[in-house]
Amino acid sequence: MDPHKNLLRSILTLLGLALCAGAADAQRPRARELGIRIGTLEPGPHNAITDVTGVRVGHVTLISGEGELEVGNGPVRTGVTAVVPHADDVYLNQVFASAVALNGNGEMTGMEWINERGLLEVPVVVTNTLSVGEGYSGVVAYMLQKNPGRVPLPVVAECYDGGLNDIAGRHVKEEHVIRAIESAAGGQVSEGSVGAGTGMRAYGFKAGIGTASRVLDSAQGAYTLGVLVVANCGRRPNLVIDGVPVGRHLPLAPRKPTRDGSIVITIATDAPLIPVQLRRLCKRSALGVSRTGTFSRTSSGDLALAFSTSRRIPRDAAMVDTVHTLRDRSLNPLLQATVEATEEAIVNALCAAETMTGRDNRTMPGIPVDRLVKIMKQHNRIE
Amino acid sequence: MDPHKNLLRSILTLLGLALCAGAADAQRPRARELGIRIGTLEPGPHNAITDVTGVRVGHVTLISGEGELEVGNGPVRTGVTAVVPHADDVYLNQVFASAVALNGNGEMTGMEWINERGLLEVPVVVTNTLSVGEGYSGVVAYMLQKNPGRVPLPVVAECYDGGLNDIAGRHVKEEHVIRAIESAAGGQVSEGSVGAGTGMRAYGFKAGIGTASRVLDSAQGAYTLGVLVVANCGRRPNLVIDGVPVGRHLPLAPRKPTRDGSIVITIATDAPLIPVQLRRLCKRSALGVSRTGTFSRTSSGDLALAFSTSRRIPRDAAMVDTVHTLRDRSLNPLLQATVEATEEAIVNALCAAETMTGRDNRTMPGIPVDRLVKIMKQHNRIE
Amino acid sequence: MDPHKNLLRSILTLLGLALCAGAADAQRPRARELGIRIGTLEPGPHNAITDVTGVRVGHVTLISGEGELEVGNGPVRTGVTAVVPHADDVYLNQVFASAVALNGNGEMTGMEWINERGLLEVPVVVTNTLSVGEGYSGVVAYMLQKNPGRVPLPVVAECYDGGLNDIAGRHVKEEHVIRAIESAAGGQVSEGSVGAGTGMRAYGFKAGIGTASRVLDSAQGAYTLGVLVVANCGRRPNLVIDGVPVGRHLPLAPRKPTRDGSIVITIATDAPLIPVQLRRLCKRSALGVSRTGTFSRTSSGDLALAFSTSRRIPRDAAMVDTVHTLRDRSLNPLLQATVEATEEAIVNALCAAETMTGRDNRTMPGIPVDRLVKIMKQHNRIE
Amino acid sequence: MDPHKNLLRSILTLLGLALCAGAADAQRPRARELGIRIGTLEPGPHNAITDVTGVRVGHVTLISGEGELEVGNGPVRTGVTAVVPHADDVYLNQVFASAVALNGNGEMTGMEWINERGLLEVPVVVTNTLSVGEGYSGVVAYMLQKNPGRVPLPVVAECYDGGLNDIAGRHVKEEHVIRAIESAAGGQVSEGSVGAGTGMRAYGFKAGIGTASRVLDSAQGAYTLGVLVVANCGRRPNLVIDGVPVGRHLPLAPRKPTRDGSIVITIATDAPLIPVQLRRLCKRSALGVSRTGTFSRTSSGDLALAFSTSRRIPRDAAMVDTVHTLRDRSLNPLLQATVEATEEAIVNALCAAETMTGRDNRTMPGIPVDRLVKIMKQHNRIE
Repeated sequence: MDPHKNLLRSILTLLGLALCAGAADAQRPRARELGIRIGTLEPGPHNAITDVTGVRVGHVTLISGEGELEVGNGPVRTGVTAVVPHADDVYLNQVFASAVALNGNGEMTGMEWINERGLLEVPVVVTNTLSVGEGYSGVVAYMLQKNPGRVPLPVVAECYDGGLNDIAGRHVKEEHVIRAIESAAGGQVSEGSVGAGTGMRAYGFKAGIGTASRVLDSAQGAYTLGVLVVANCGRRPNLVIDGVPVGRHLPLAPRKPTRDGSIVITIATDAPLIPVQLRRLCKRSALGVSRTGTFSRTSSGDLALAFSTSRRIPRDAAMVDTVHTLRDRSLNPLLQATVEATEEAIVNALCAAETMTGRDNRTMPGIPVDRLVKIMKQHNRIE
Repeated sequence: MDPHKNLLRSILTLLGLALCAGAADAQRPRARELGIRIGTLEPGPHNAITDVTGVRVGHVTLISGEGELEVGNGPVRTGVTAVVPHADDVYLNQVFASAVALNGNGEMTGMEWINERGLLEVPVVVTNTLSVGEGYSGVVAYMLQKNPGRVPLPVVAECYDGGLNDIAGRHVKEEHVIRAIESAAGGQVSEGSVGAGTGMRAYGFKAGIGTASRVLDSAQGAYTLGVLVVANCGRRPNLVIDGVPVGRHLPLAPRKPTRDGSIVITIATDAPLIPVQLRRLCKRSALGVSRTGTFSRTSSGDLALAFSTSRRIPRDAAMVDTVHTLRDRSLNPLLQATVEATEEAIVNALCAAETMTGRDNRTMPGIPVDRLVKIMKQHNRIE
Repeated sequence: MDPHKNLLRSILTLLGLALCAGAADAQRPRARELGIRIGTLEPGPHNAITDVTGVRVGHVTLISGEGELEVGNGPVRTGVTAVVPHADDVYLNQVFASAVALNGNGEMTGMEWINERGLLEVPVVVTNTLSVGEGYSGVVAYMLQKNPGRVPLPVVAECYDGGLNDIAGRHVKEEHVIRAIESAAGGQVSEGSVGAGTGMRAYGFKAGIGTASRVLDSAQGAYTLGVLVVANCGRRPNLVIDGVPVGRHLPLAPRKPTRDGSIVITIATDAPLIPVQLRRLCKRSALGVSRTGTFSRTSSGDLALAFSTSRRIPRDAAMVDTVHTLRDRSLNPLLQATVEATEEAIVNALCAAETMTGRDNRTMPGIPVDRLVKIMKQHNRIE
Repeated sequence: MDPHKNLLRSILTLLGLALCAGAADAQRPRARELGIRIGTLEPGPHNAITDVTGVRVGHVTLISGEGELEVGNGPVRTGVTAVVPHADDVYLNQVFASAVALNGNGEMTGMEWINERGLLEVPVVVTNTLSVGEGYSGVVAYMLQKNPGRVPLPVVAECYDGGLNDIAGRHVKEEHVIRAIESAAGGQVSEGSVGAGTGMRAYGFKAGIGTASRVLDSAQGAYTLGVLVVANCGRRPNLVIDGVPVGRHLPLAPRKPTRDGSIVITIATDAPLIPVQLRRLCKRSALGVSRTGTFSRTSSGDLALAFSTSRRIPRDAAMVDTVHTLRDRSLNPLLQATVEATEEAIVNALCAAETMTGRDNRTMPGIPVDRLVKIMKQHNRIE
């Protein structure tokens, strides 16, 4: 790592500020720029969840300290990511949603009420495993800022970043959560070691945030579907990229295996889907995850949430809403889009994330892009 | 029982015909006629599932033989009941639906696809446990009659009537299923020992088919909700009617307990509900069942299905449907209606069913109406 | 309320201490002391969840301030309740568990992983809706105190106490959660306005914590099953106690209806049940709730969790565990016990809770015990 | 196809007999014989579900007629497959089980009670979509043969074979089901166009029955896990084999797309798993399916059932059973085994199935093995 960057980090840490690592990481190529083309559908303009009109993403990245772990003092390699369904007040303008545990060994608060009602009325927040409480409190605080009479039930999911991060130090605070929500924006989305992805790793490589999208052609409704993952799953030998067993060709130095990870998947679409249909998208995301090689280990928390922006249900309005629902037989392209975008989002997370050194000087390498390209060519998957 | 009626039955049995017991049984008073008023909402004109416009019910009742059980020869005390969502071709005009196992120790085919898609495209058929295969084949045959290219997935549920019926004789045939569907009609619904209810018992009394409905006032949308049960659950000491522990006051002669039973519950409404909401109605029916005193024994198959007639989804049409959905906060009266109508339907099944003698001369008594009224008065629940 | 008690409370508040109201409330009679006998099974020695050997309950009650609501300053009427499965370290000695949403419009964190794995490894914590974050953080802090390397996924449920409490003031802090867990004890359990029940109301009466238990006879295995509820559900006209429509006879002064509430149900047993069986107990608790008259309103968060203390699964041990499982057909008494104990726990919560005045001088009356007894007698349910 | 074989078939058809195509099909190489090695775990001696001790498979294959479809007269290309958990009477010696809908647009009867109780007490039967009724009746008849007092709830699943078969002719009869169960045997399992697989196709190729197994090493418990699929899913362009996009290299002649298919997956293991764990195996089978390229289309009925033979629960015995349960952290190799064996079973189904001509002279080609091998080599996946 650049020593000046480290110096800058130390200064920022002293000032109590967090360094947004996003800008730097954005310079690594995305999968598609490497020639890796997952699936057959076309991505949207940013190949990101934000291609779904109105969807916004905000990251707060907390990086400070180096060297030996001292619980409470760092090193800190963590953060918060918020996905906000649309630009209006979500609490007052709910969207249809569904959430499914592909393997439930993790936390996503709010799943029961989302599935009971089929509605989402809060931003989706992801952070580290031991900071879910602060994530929850942060969403509550954000909502009460807007109106102290609200009674929100937050949606906060987590992955474990304790391999690099002083996770027991619980460095995520309510204000980070509020800032992630408030800073959420459309357009290009930072990937890799940013926001909730800051300290995450997948398949023995540094990973974190990844995103991708698909746009259907006009005969299929011209709908857009985007996926954002916090990728923290899988072991090196299992890594598969676009069908190629990359992990077998990039062996790890022998070492103690890491804890099993997790993956949190947020799916957004502007297609007119009711909750029973959104649930089907969630289930498809497992198929996309599978194609990157993990078999979803026993302690993995693989949780998916899908929402549709096509209809905003106002909180205080008529007794009956008129909504639209795509015919089941027209759902296939969206199922395909979910599988493809989930797979590509994971690969993007791997491609974007630079090597990071964290607690106890543990280093998690970024995937070596040159070798990846070479392996893909050997398998006749890149020209 | 009227000896002439028995004679008539014997004659009919000899002729190989089934006696439709509905007309006769209709003469026993329904709960409301006894002064028992479950809940506070008002019933519809027939206090039946058919109060939901378009919903039709058909029964085929199979009663023949007396005396010792001879497997294959009877005595036969069984039948088929069909609930048809509307008067058009249901396969071509699907309705939103959901199905839930309150206690899943029974069979209702089709639950997975109903819940995957949120749509119902077949009549709901109920018969005895060992005749589900014939029920299934019967629905297939009915559908193929209409169009041999169809690929229906039938919905067939069951309760065990082997206490009175030669259940191992499997007397239900495909043609009975077809007849039940084809004969389905609106208006008054026969209750008690008819159709699938013919051989059923609940709380140590003869039971079977029961139905009830509720109509919301206009401020609540003026919706109608109706329930039809095949009641075959509960043990005598547990029977509660409108809060009164009737079962404790109507003790059984000591005898071997019967097998645990089941209850199949069909809920229809014209309220504009999408599948995620219909699922909630299903769950409420368990609350209604509970109020009749059973605790849903381990081997009970307590299965509920709900559908909304408010929107017919044509099989071959536009890519996107416009549908309506009731606001969640307006759902409460329908939840209440489900609980009340389920409870009343069970009581109606008990009130309607006359004493029946079946296999091995086993007799299952009808609930003694005079004593029931007296007990209700003692508890200050009937004036 | 006694003015001296208020003075004492104010002093304690200044000292930063919470008053445990339990002792005082314990003096109201419990349902059984009034002659109300729910069901037919016998309760255990304390008629409480703590009758299950090893199960411990801890309350932290936060009561301070009076008069107008000033968000952040009170009045405070809230708290935390913890149910701890056994006396050892639960994280290191897991128990089989299951959790089910009867109506999911509330939060119980951890449900997905409990159901994925069938194991519980944390105390069950309940608090108010807007303090779930602090509840979560509190359990994390408690676990990290024991060992900073732990990665717990807390189980924190909630009900809404904002009718009496400055809920937006978020007065529950991590230390309250830790104290509730650490102070958990066996023996008699305080009921009514204590712990998480402090600000709760049900059926238009002050309510909160209630508990009850059942002990099976030796032919049924001599197992004990206990239930603890945080009762915050239902509207006055619907209240039913042991079948008697008490609510109709105790009319409310006309006023704006309160928000819909919720109920959180914890079920403990020493019977050898595996997770698939514990799930069935959870579902039975809905039947017990139903018998108190609510139809589980649309925005109710009615969530149940069951665990068995019969086998502790050590965290670090053999590859294969030997466990016991009750035969399904022997499950019936436990199903019945769940229904009965849930119903009685709710009635106990109502009986125990004294009238309380909270924010904006709103007063929630305790159920008038004399009139309750009179009504029960009129309906011939108490001698 | 060999004209002599066709002649033989015609003769057999005239004689009213069914030709068991298994022997012939067995001569095509299996995936592993072609050098395709899915995953890293080792298969068992037969690389079949029957490697799990005691598990038996029976096929009844119905092939008769040629040319134009005449409903009721054929051509017939269908059958029944039964998986029997062990050699004893399954009804009297139940095994732990679980069942999950990956995409629920199909039928597997019995799912609710399997999941309610966690037990399997019948053989698992698969047949065509319109013959589920006969499948159900056949299992009932089989059980009543053994003891007329039984009340079985059959498990019958289906896939649609109407592309080649006179499915509306409903040629499967009860006796075929009984014969499939009674003829079930261990050892080598016929694959491809046999039993329920007779008329099935996947990815635009003839497919049907496939099976595979994995054996863990002794440090992992030396457990065996086997999978049997009825593969009837996916479209040609999506076919992936061991990561290679084979379907893109084997283009279809332009023609009307076929109906979407389904896949029924049965998983057996001798590992000591309780139902909550078997459910996790079921969910993993979706990951294996995904790796063959389908995204599980909207009308696919993708249903999985898993059982463990490690413990037989006698029907009439003690109140409490002693069972074993694998520690969760030791579950990973079984999760991996499920993914690998499911993927390989599908590939085996494709490899085994010869070209078949059915109704209306429609021909479904067997996968061209030489070209497959060549494509795999081009992608550097076979040496």
